[in-house]
Amino acid sequence: MKIIVVGAEGDIGKAVCEELGARHDIVTAGRSSGEVRVDMADRTSVEAMYARTGQVDAVVSTAGNVHFGPLADYTQDTFMLGLENKVMGQVNLVLAGLGTVTEGGSFTLTSGVLDRDPIRMGTGAATANGALGGFVVGAAIEMPRGLRVNVVSPGLLDVSVPRYGAWFPGHEPVSSGKVGRAYAKSVEGAITGQVIIVE
Amino acid sequence: MKIIVVGAEGDIGKAVCEELGARHDIVTAGRSSGEVRVDMADRTSVEAMYARTGQVDAVVSTAGNVHFGPLADYTQDTFMLGLENKVMGQVNLVLAGLGTVTEGGSFTLTSGVLDRDPIRMGTGAATANGALGGFVVGAAIEMPRGLRVNVVSPGLLDVSVPRYGAWFPGHEPVSSGKVGRAYAKSVEGAITGQVIIVE
Repeated sequence: MKIIVVGAEGDIGKAVCEELGARHDIVTAGRSSGEVRVDMADRTSVEAMYARTGQVDAVVSTAGNVHFGPLADYTQDTFMLGLENKVMGQVNLVLAGLGTVTEGGSFTLTSGVLDRDPIRMGTGAATANGALGGFVVGAAIEMPRGLRVNVVSPGLLDVSVPRYGAWFPGHEPVSSGKVGRAYAKSVEGAITGQVIIVE
Repeated sequence: MKIIVVGAEGDIGKAVCEELGARHDIVTAGRSSGEVRVDMADRTSVEAMYARTGQVDAVVSTAGNVHFGPLADYTQDTFMLGLENKVMGQVNLVLAGLGTVTEGGSFTLTSGVLDRDPIRMGTGAATANGALGGFVVGAAIEMPRGLRVNVVSPGLLDVSVPRYGAWFPGHEPVSSGKVGRAYAKSVEGAITGQVIIVE
């Protein structure tokens, strides 16, 4: 398969490339790194990415920005970041890619643990994660040509613990290998409309 | 209790006022009707609403716009409507109201059935509903002064069937009374961080 991985340089993106790169051709994409540059929060930029890659068999996104901060300190702008970037950005990858992914191919997005196991300062992420879960349920039943769409919701990765562990007290880290396999389940399997929890 | 009901003129809002109005003082609010006019998608307008109502014991929102349309026809703008209005609007009611609601008081938002039981043309709503579910989980653990936050997720109301029933094939309508009681559970009960499903 030819697979676009948006956000390939992040901890989750590396886990995806490690797992899927062994068997497939990966095209890396990202805002500031990757073979193709894309600002997924801008539909036009996403369309330009697909024009450049041409037909692919799967799209994986492990990208998306969210503001972290105390609940009472969120402004409308800081709260909207997650909705405009992590949610709309990943949704743009699907909406703009419906004609580019081959029959039976897949979109696999990324949410995270915070809408089921919240932490302080994580409300923006919890909201974005919930939105992506709702999106795949709604979108799956209307996908053309047998296309599929799922979202992987991983816990904190073991490799991310040195940077983020202090914000996630008591959270059990998940291995990069296990996270990578969740994406393989979506890309190489047949499921659709699922939130694939990794914990 | 003194309770603000945003969207009091809608089918769900009427069910809320019928249930809670029997025991409490209701202040109706809305964009084009109600005692207080508010555009909840504009934080400044929400702040002005609270300045006018003064301290209240509970805030209920049954409002929020979403674009309905075939998945492939969503533009970035039509998709964002649900995120900017139904999600950010209701979130604004919470964020701007943290200082206005009395100790132990509550915010009760409204999502809907489409993120667990999807219909054609409903992906924007499914996404917004999921977002609100994530929001209450994330926000509940950071609410000050024992404030609580829940979201009611009702199926299609019986009274809404004449207008919307054709879009919801096979969906079992729920009675307005049952929907109203779900809001009473949030407002008069003690739960927080919950998605209250009515089906």
